[in-house]
Amino acid sequence: MSVTTAQGFTAAGLAAGIKATGKADLALVRNLGPDFTAAAVFTSNRVKAAPVQWSEQVIKDGKLQAVILNSGGANACTGPDGFADTHATAEAVADALGIGAIDVAVCSTGLIGTRLPMDKITGAIPAIVQQSSTDGGDDAAEAIMTTDTHSKQATASGSGWTVGAMAKGAGMLAPGLATMLVVITTDAVIDAAELDSALRQATAATFDRVDSDGCMSTNDTVIAMASGASGEAADRAEFEAALTAVCHELAQQLLGDAEGAAHRIAINIHGAVSADDAIMVGRTIARNNLFKCAIFGEDPNWGRVLAAIGTTDADFDPDQLDVSFNGIKVCVGGSIGEPRELVDLGPREVAVDVDLHAGDHETTIWTNDLTYDYVKENAEYVS
Amino acid sequence: MSVTTAQGFTAAGLAAGIKATGKADLALVRNLGPDFTAAAVFTSNRVKAAPVQWSEQVIKDGKLQAVILNSGGANACTGPDGFADTHATAEAVADALGIGAIDVAVCSTGLIGTRLPMDKITGAIPAIVQQSSTDGGDDAAEAIMTTDTHSKQATASGSGWTVGAMAKGAGMLAPGLATMLVVITTDAVIDAAELDSALRQATAATFDRVDSDGCMSTNDTVIAMASGASGEAADRAEFEAALTAVCHELAQQLLGDAEGAAHRIAINIHGAVSADDAIMVGRTIARNNLFKCAIFGEDPNWGRVLAAIGTTDADFDPDQLDVSFNGIKVCVGGSIGEPRELVDLGPREVAVDVDLHAGDHETTIWTNDLTYDYVKENAEYVS
Repeated sequence: MSVTTAQGFTAAGLAAGIKATGKADLALVRNLGPDFTAAAVFTSNRVKAAPVQWSEQVIKDGKLQAVILNSGGANACTGPDGFADTHATAEAVADALGIGAIDVAVCSTGLIGTRLPMDKITGAIPAIVQQSSTDGGDDAAEAIMTTDTHSKQATASGSGWTVGAMAKGAGMLAPGLATMLVVITTDAVIDAAELDSALRQATAATFDRVDSDGCMSTNDTVIAMASGASGEAADRAEFEAALTAVCHELAQQLLGDAEGAAHRIAINIHGAVSADDAIMVGRTIARNNLFKCAIFGEDPNWGRVLAAIGTTDADFDPDQLDVSFNGIKVCVGGSIGEPRELVDLGPREVAVDVDLHAGDHETTIWTNDLTYDYVKENAEYVS
Repeated sequence: MSVTTAQGFTAAGLAAGIKATGKADLALVRNLGPDFTAAAVFTSNRVKAAPVQWSEQVIKDGKLQAVILNSGGANACTGPDGFADTHATAEAVADALGIGAIDVAVCSTGLIGTRLPMDKITGAIPAIVQQSSTDGGDDAAEAIMTTDTHSKQATASGSGWTVGAMAKGAGMLAPGLATMLVVITTDAVIDAAELDSALRQATAATFDRVDSDGCMSTNDTVIAMASGASGEAADRAEFEAALTAVCHELAQQLLGDAEGAAHRIAINIHGAVSADDAIMVGRTIARNNLFKCAIFGEDPNWGRVLAAIGTTDADFDPDQLDVSFNGIKVCVGGSIGEPRELVDLGPREVAVDVDLHAGDHETTIWTNDLTYDYVKENAEYVS
């Protein structure tokens, strides 16, 4: 159930002293081969953290032998000095492993705009390399947590091969990608172009449909590494399905642990003229604070859903909109439908179905409600 | 200090029984002439309330003799029946005044998606017409409040003429326009085209720069009426300045009373290549929940400002961004600037200055922080 479930990988996690709390804050995932195939997807935020800038470069040859990850600091908006820190981290890992820094990706997560304590990181690298083992996946998943209340892992199996994965993320969750770090491992034999294509398909259908709080991170990174250690070549369709299943499972774990959330909300858009329209309408609802507060208050406030849809330029006729909360169609034809008293928003899982009656496309956007605890965590979060 | 400060206007406000609390919920503003010039600006939300659909029609001839306003129900998303209710309200006012319904605008505010108690509204119209007086402005301003904690009024004077105004609004405040009803009166002599043009200029520079919570209403309406009772023709520039001053004052009152807010935040964007870029960047910051929570927590979290800017496609180089909180430049050249400990975010007024260093355009977007009380009000608001 971890990144070391797939053959050919070792991992470790430890407390390097980056976090003032003394909790684990440094993780390593190492690919022992025989293949070193890799692919990655990064945040589309134009303000990119130093580790994103570094990893975007080293992934270009489609190969990686290790990923070093730290929590306790995002190393974002830290200028040339911050980039030098990332470079030095990769070099230290490369030195300890006897490989080149170009085969080491770096991920960081935590507060934006502060330098990392580099002496602590480089000082801990010999130890983390030594600890790295085939059952170190759980420790690595623990070490990348920030405001996460638990670690996130998932696995899937194919015909003779396995996929394992870990993720962190609990806030700043929005498309392109959610604020998160994800490392996916597989022992399947697959070439870099296929791995990259499968990864992009899988993330587009899962992480990119999560919009917890509309805030996009500077550090999002999803890295996939294939060791080929199973000796089994992956069937493309089967592999993409397994990868998508793992990403979906992790995305749901991210949503389930979203900062302060009391409800997990699936916004299902039906009858859109295009996939883009469906996504736009879904995201606009997901980002509407009044709607999110209403769900927290267990109020099936369909008027706020219509008010949100009305701000988009999607194709629809206001008099044709239907909205259901947990199966009760409270809005029919843009006006009053079933009594809102029939809706029970007590359960954590909420489904909002919107039919635009304009076409045949549909999608689901996942979000959370807006709660006291969200405000509390994000008013007080400084580490 | 009210809509009856300008000569030629009467007004009234009373409790018709629409609100379960028994508070005032019906207001009338009447223009006695000799001119009946009018102009209006409405929400750009495509889901428009019935009173907006009605008032958009009756304003087309540039004339109005009365505006009837109710709180306690938005009459939005109520279908053909809701439109008939608005029409019946206008007819009842017209009957009582001996005028045509085409000279009566209607405004409603409150919960979306419920029908109005029409018997109570039409039953109260004879009384409100009778009560209407030249010192009824304060009562009218009280009667349009929903979650407002106080009524909002403003006046300005020109060369021999006066402008008076009232507004309601405390939530769902976002551009195009904020969730609000505004009635502006003047005794200046001005033609309908000039009044319309001056009103659009004034609202674009004031209400359209307010983005309290990113949520756009279905009912926003700003109506201006000119009685010509002063006999003084308004100089266009002077009149637009007076109108803008009144709208600015009301916009600041709306922000000051925004639901649950603890800080009023001016986001000043400098160095943009265009006005559109400046507005886009300012709004994107204003809508970022993590930034808004940070201000509530009195944390000058400039990293969240950069992360928000990075999601826009405005012209800028991430390495050139400067950010100041209350005059302390905590981010210089996209990286760490002055110590954040120097920033005091205790006062209610907060100024965030962002320099894109890309051009010469600048703007200010006004917003609020995201607080426990915002969540509380909007999780519990059902009337």
